[in-house]
Amino acid sequence: MASYLVTGASRGLGFEMTRQLISLPVSQVNKVFATTRADAPGLTELAQKSSGRLVVIKLDVSKEATIKEAAKEVEANLAGKGLDVLINNAGKMQWTPNGVATMDDLEDTFITNVLGVHRVTQAFFPLLQKGNLKKVANISTTLGSIALAPQYAAGSAPAYKITKTALNSLTVQYALGYEKEGFTFFAISPGWLKTDLGSQDADLDVEVGAKATLDKILGAGKEQNGQFLNIHVKGFEKAGPNQYDGANPPW
Amino acid sequence: MASYLVTGASRGLGFEMTRQLISLPVSQVNKVFATTRADAPGLTELAQKSSGRLVVIKLDVSKEATIKEAAKEVEANLAGKGLDVLINNAGKMQWTPNGVATMDDLEDTFITNVLGVHRVTQAFFPLLQKGNLKKVANISTTLGSIALAPQYAAGSAPAYKITKTALNSLTVQYALGYEKEGFTFFAISPGWLKTDLGSQDADLDVEVGAKATLDKILGAGKEQNGQFLNIHVKGFEKAGPNQYDGANPPW
Repeated sequence: MASYLVTGASRGLGFEMTRQLISLPVSQVNKVFATTRADAPGLTELAQKSSGRLVVIKLDVSKEATIKEAAKEVEANLAGKGLDVLINNAGKMQWTPNGVATMDDLEDTFITNVLGVHRVTQAFFPLLQKGNLKKVANISTTLGSIALAPQYAAGSAPAYKITKTALNSLTVQYALGYEKEGFTFFAISPGWLKTDLGSQDADLDVEVGAKATLDKILGAGKEQNGQFLNIHVKGFEKAGPNQYDGANPPW
Repeated sequence: MASYLVTGASRGLGFEMTRQLISLPVSQVNKVFATTRADAPGLTELAQKSSGRLVVIKLDVSKEATIKEAAKEVEANLAGKGLDVLINNAGKMQWTPNGVATMDDLEDTFITNVLGVHRVTQAFFPLLQKGNLKKVANISTTLGSIALAPQYAAGSAPAYKITKTALNSLTVQYALGYEKEGFTFFAISPGWLKTDLGSQDADLDVEVGAKATLDKILGAGKEQNGQFLNIHVKGFEKAGPNQYDGANPPW
């Protein structure tokens, strides 16, 4: 019996992880808080059918006031209990077709992909300290690996790549800082998924990627603290440059 | 005969690199532009004695308008010539003594250490394209290495570490993007130096670190494009966790 909070749950990977989490037995997942910055009819419908297991929360990771409000709302709902698992999923990617020297979205992307994760973690930290699992999964990408950058050079999304590298670094700072308190922080690459962000050219259906990502998140223990995890999908161990073999990517 | 631009040259490593650059033969370094966000009497004095080889330029890497103004000023001074080498040295570090969950300077540090470097590179890019060497050195630190983070866990400067990781990633994006145009972009760790930023507890005198950093910058060729360089200081191959053995640190 554990409680989860998933940011960026209105669509794509966040929505699908939320849907799959509440389909698990109550003995495993008894409550899911799913955050969205705008109205999300699909999520509302899911919540209405969930007998109170799914709670939709308004939160825009780029606006600190909404994060603080959301933390208060979740705290009230938990009624004295802690939050067990935080999945920082909200993120954005934009294209820079004319080369990194023309990049004009670095600050904006940083505010969502790095500062947003930090502020959410910060705001929910007291609830996580009261939780039993003390687990924080930051949704990253192998495109954030500096060592793998040459093989992804053709993908014109430098702000996305740079901010995800920074997210990996943030994750490790948290991991080192709170290991002694029993926390487990890790970054995880969910694969290239057929979502609005990943496009329909992607490798994997979102259901497959979400399942593989949750397998890793649910299975992660303290030995994964500070690691960069990758999904394992049978039959996709080597799909072009993306290897979904479950082995940790290099930094 | 090459022209250099060094940001953050009012003190510390930037000042010392500037001083050493103009002490080199004119055949090697004929002009140095040294930028400072505030009045810098030491730099002004150095310029006055330099017979026009050192030009002091006002530039605050956190304020885009000042960067654009500075680029115009440098362009006018170069009178049709290009800029050969850009050393992105300006950076900041603040302490977060009570743990990363209390960090409140991440955005501010990012604006100087990452966005500042991007905007400076962007603004001087046309002049660099006209230059002969097309070399850009981004002053980083082994504290920005995610792989080395455990050994630096005791140093309470998470925003500095995270933003320097992001700077390494930015450097590699530029390196991959402009390799074909003949550019060389690299990150370099100048060592832990006795400056205002490094404190007097540091390993090396600033003169020693600046010399070792310039040795690497001046010696770097296209084979160093996209690399993370480290200084080599004889006798300091292993000084505590910092190894100044000249070998590239891991990402």
